[in-house]
Amino acid sequence: MRIDILTVVPELLESPLNHSIIQRAKDKGVVEIHIHNIRDFSEDKHNKVDDYAFSGGAGMVMRLEPVVKAIEHLTNQRKYDEIIFTTPDGEQFEQKTANTLSLKENIIILCGHYKGIDQRIRDHFITKEISIGDFVLTGGELAAAVITDSVVRLIPGAMNDETSALTDSFQDNLLSPPIYTRPAEFRGWKVPEILLSGDHKKIEQWQEEQAYLRTKKLRPDLLDE
Amino acid sequence: MRIDILTVVPELLESPLNHSIIQRAKDKGVVEIHIHNIRDFSEDKHNKVDDYAFSGGAGMVMRLEPVVKAIEHLTNQRKYDEIIFTTPDGEQFEQKTANTLSLKENIIILCGHYKGIDQRIRDHFITKEISIGDFVLTGGELAAAVITDSVVRLIPGAMNDETSALTDSFQDNLLSPPIYTRPAEFRGWKVPEILLSGDHKKIEQWQEEQAYLRTKKLRPDLLDE
Repeated sequence: MRIDILTVVPELLESPLNHSIIQRAKDKGVVEIHIHNIRDFSEDKHNKVDDYAFSGGAGMVMRLEPVVKAIEHLTNQRKYDEIIFTTPDGEQFEQKTANTLSLKENIIILCGHYKGIDQRIRDHFITKEISIGDFVLTGGELAAAVITDSVVRLIPGAMNDETSALTDSFQDNLLSPPIYTRPAEFRGWKVPEILLSGDHKKIEQWQEEQAYLRTKKLRPDLLDE
Repeated sequence: MRIDILTVVPELLESPLNHSIIQRAKDKGVVEIHIHNIRDFSEDKHNKVDDYAFSGGAGMVMRLEPVVKAIEHLTNQRKYDEIIFTTPDGEQFEQKTANTLSLKENIIILCGHYKGIDQRIRDHFITKEISIGDFVLTGGELAAAVITDSVVRLIPGAMNDETSALTDSFQDNLLSPPIYTRPAEFRGWKVPEILLSGDHKKIEQWQEEQAYLRTKKLRPDLLDE
């Protein structure tokens, strides 16, 4: 899989995409991630990428031309399955979106910044608008990092132990059960007796029960799906 | 405001918290952000921070002791308003959570990693569990960066132009209207006539109407709140 990220602040994305599972996935060759500075595509002599909104008001708007040039620089070289724009009014990002995207070959993620991007980019180039939640961020960079992280870990070979991703929350519409490690007692707080019993069948039953109870208590909506 | 972030992979958080608005807010002294490596609090000779789950199965669990030491190292020095744990089964992070947190003085954000953290940490130390969405990430670091970014930009003085944050999506339960900048025409795609009219009152009306229509189309649920 190949992921191209377009941004005006590439330095924001340096550390999240160069460590841990993503770095391992890149090293193993299961994913290629390319970060492009939209500023490099500006023909303005000051490499300007923003301008005032026609409507007036506070905040700058990302200009059409450098973004279009950056997108077409990529689409002229290969076919992309999706050109994604991260925006608070996009469709809600969920685990099933991550599952779907992890099966794609080439995707572009365009990060908004400033007050927003010229609407004509969204109308004419973007194939999918994604929001990671009902909150406002400085820019789309963290949203792009979140999408990339959740997608890359699902690509076969990205994680050391593939069963690990399959038992995560949401993959079966259940939250994960509580989890414990040594010591069995700490300041008088004990792990549940059953986990020390060595009875694997009972432990598994207990975990399923706990996952169900936790989901019912915290997220009953997941059980209705 | 002071934000302390506890993590086993501090390097993941380097770039998102050292650029753009967050860096500016730190430079202006409106926020202090301290990142702590949980590994520094491990008394194990290999600085081990994880161990096998009592329940067996794939994935490691974050150990209780170094996390408790890290938390108490901080709480012994000052009073914290919240000790937050980022987890997919926490309460959904929304703009109003960001608004509330931006009024606090001291908060700790504990990032989960591996398969999860020992449940006893959640039971005995955490005051607020937050999820940034129904998807699974490699760790809580990106969630912590998202929370920090959305909170810091709301602190008075963090942004150059404070009216800018107030007109963002969600602050009035409406999505932002479409936004345009120069050129007025690009490849035959024109900006809406009214934005070129110079009639500020009409432009404002048009924006309110567009914000309402976009919200009604994409997120009717926001209008019911």
